[in-house]
Amino acid sequence: MSAAFTFNASATDGAARVGEMSCPHGRIRTPAFMPVGTAGTVKAMLPETVRETGADIVLGNTYHLMLRPGAEQVAALGGLHTFMNWDGPILTDSGGFQVMSLAKLRKISEQGVTFQSHIDGATFELTPERSIEIQCLLGADIQMVFDECTRYPCERDEARASMELSMRWAERSREAFASMGHAGQALFGIVQGGVHADLREASARALCEMDFDGYAVGGLAVGEGQELMLETLGRTVPLLPDDRPRYLMGVGTPQDLILSVARGVDMFDCVMPTRSGRHGQVFGWDGRVNLRNASHADDPRPLDETSSCPAARDYSRAYLHHLVKSREYLGAMLLSWANLHFYQQLMARMRAAIVEGRFEAFAKQTLARLSADGNQV
Amino acid sequence: MSAAFTFNASATDGAARVGEMSCPHGRIRTPAFMPVGTAGTVKAMLPETVRETGADIVLGNTYHLMLRPGAEQVAALGGLHTFMNWDGPILTDSGGFQVMSLAKLRKISEQGVTFQSHIDGATFELTPERSIEIQCLLGADIQMVFDECTRYPCERDEARASMELSMRWAERSREAFASMGHAGQALFGIVQGGVHADLREASARALCEMDFDGYAVGGLAVGEGQELMLETLGRTVPLLPDDRPRYLMGVGTPQDLILSVARGVDMFDCVMPTRSGRHGQVFGWDGRVNLRNASHADDPRPLDETSSCPAARDYSRAYLHHLVKSREYLGAMLLSWANLHFYQQLMARMRAAIVEGRFEAFAKQTLARLSADGNQV
Repeated sequence: MSAAFTFNASATDGAARVGEMSCPHGRIRTPAFMPVGTAGTVKAMLPETVRETGADIVLGNTYHLMLRPGAEQVAALGGLHTFMNWDGPILTDSGGFQVMSLAKLRKISEQGVTFQSHIDGATFELTPERSIEIQCLLGADIQMVFDECTRYPCERDEARASMELSMRWAERSREAFASMGHAGQALFGIVQGGVHADLREASARALCEMDFDGYAVGGLAVGEGQELMLETLGRTVPLLPDDRPRYLMGVGTPQDLILSVARGVDMFDCVMPTRSGRHGQVFGWDGRVNLRNASHADDPRPLDETSSCPAARDYSRAYLHHLVKSREYLGAMLLSWANLHFYQQLMARMRAAIVEGRFEAFAKQTLARLSADGNQV
Repeated sequence: MSAAFTFNASATDGAARVGEMSCPHGRIRTPAFMPVGTAGTVKAMLPETVRETGADIVLGNTYHLMLRPGAEQVAALGGLHTFMNWDGPILTDSGGFQVMSLAKLRKISEQGVTFQSHIDGATFELTPERSIEIQCLLGADIQMVFDECTRYPCERDEARASMELSMRWAERSREAFASMGHAGQALFGIVQGGVHADLREASARALCEMDFDGYAVGGLAVGEGQELMLETLGRTVPLLPDDRPRYLMGVGTPQDLILSVARGVDMFDCVMPTRSGRHGQVFGWDGRVNLRNASHADDPRPLDETSSCPAARDYSRAYLHHLVKSREYLGAMLLSWANLHFYQQLMARMRAAIVEGRFEAFAKQTLARLSADGNQV
């Protein structure tokens, strides 16, 4: 059918690749960075400004939206696209990760997770079936299987049991999606297994047998460090089918993105550009700048006079420093904007470099510039 | 000289009038509403969005800017226009009002006021001369004399002494401005005298003898109530020269604006549209709406589907309610925007009604609609 979810990689350069996904709400150029719209808003950004930065797709959080305003409420109001005034594609996570990191009094069983809302203490249950139901009520173009994000560090036996539970939940998610998903919507599996190569391999094989529209690598960027993350990623990606998009969840710094694209990743999401922006940190081609630092107080230069982003081009560092120090809304607005614009520019330049067969040189050069700030994670 | 500050009233309708001021940074259509950019930013608004709402001029607060980042700092960075990326006219207050309302350990003398910053306790002094110096360092198109805003309620003798001090400070401000002001910049006097008609008259006469570019009515909207405010205003405005703009400081609700334009006021400033927006209150033709109210949780209607403002037109009340309840930045951004747009629309409609000689009918009809909400101040 014409509305089917599709993914086509049109160019490769080493393991890196450029492609395009097609969803009910539009196309997504890959490698793609998805701004995080936690509670139905990319924090401190107008949706049209998110679009103008070059974002094709945003992420919504099942956990946050199920608690407030509630999935049925969003559905009654026309779905998440209408609710948040974003007419492009939306990917929703399954809620699993944030139940573990935010909710109170969690209780995990084979069936799913019961927990208390961090907002008002009300009790909720998330199961694979309920997670998919919520994602369908929200109307997400791309949905994620319900999984348990294995904590780090984690002993092998516990990591195995956690991964195997996630695989059983993946199968239940798949069955639920088969009956509830709409035409063109996609469901992605999530590889777990911690930093254990054989567990990752078992997880990838199990998921591939279930045949998902795309495959995410989960359970990374949870404290293992960049080296171990990249090692695990490098071993996992080759286990995934070439004709499906690969999504590295919750990652990361500009360096992480470059090094992961080099390993064949097509999609990313991370709160870093918006959260850092709210805290006065900005990303640029020469690394990170902390605008809280008093050294910026009398600096008349903009963040980047060559940028096409008004936030980076039209305001002095001294003014941005003043806004951050004064805790003005406009500080969070401008720095979130500048950071999201930078992230999208990075993705655009990576896509161009891949198409032109010069990704390795681009990556090397850009990584060298980015590390100039000397304070990278 | 061509750069001279000018004011021309081009149409009158009863006491109401339409005109235009010309400043170094552009023209200002009157009656004008000036959004308040306290610390060098109209809170939660991009400057280009402020402009798009129809604002010709914004207000900056001398008190806030002298404390942070400091007037000399702003001057070194090219002045307030460059600093906040607003190339239109700017009016600055004298700092007097906020020294009284915000600073700690104030000590008033004939010379001026010494006080401690509410931010870090540092000691500052404001005198008429320093206030004008700061306003010149900021580069304000329209500057205000340094005055003491008489508290309310206030006994006659105290109100008289306070007003007479303000008049001596006005004269010193005028002398300071004569030596420091730049071509085309304007200095406005401020009528004080509390709610005492004879003191207001004495103050107005004293200021007119000093010959200012415009005249403000200060010391109102400080707790005396709308009736007493309008009564005092109605007695004060006729004492001011027809060929100079009249500015009612710190006012007010949409009703206040209509009733004051009817009495011949040309300019207003107020934090109400932005502050209310941050607290979930929106203004519209049918009165105020409190979006915190649970009744909006499932309301798919926008604030005003006929509005040309995206904030009022493109988001459901249910979504705005969700943003306010979730304390999301976007809630403050959209509601400040919608409110400033509404205020500017109100000014535009008043100007059109005056030009067309139907202001009284417009005022009557609009006041009736506005009171429909039943919860006006």
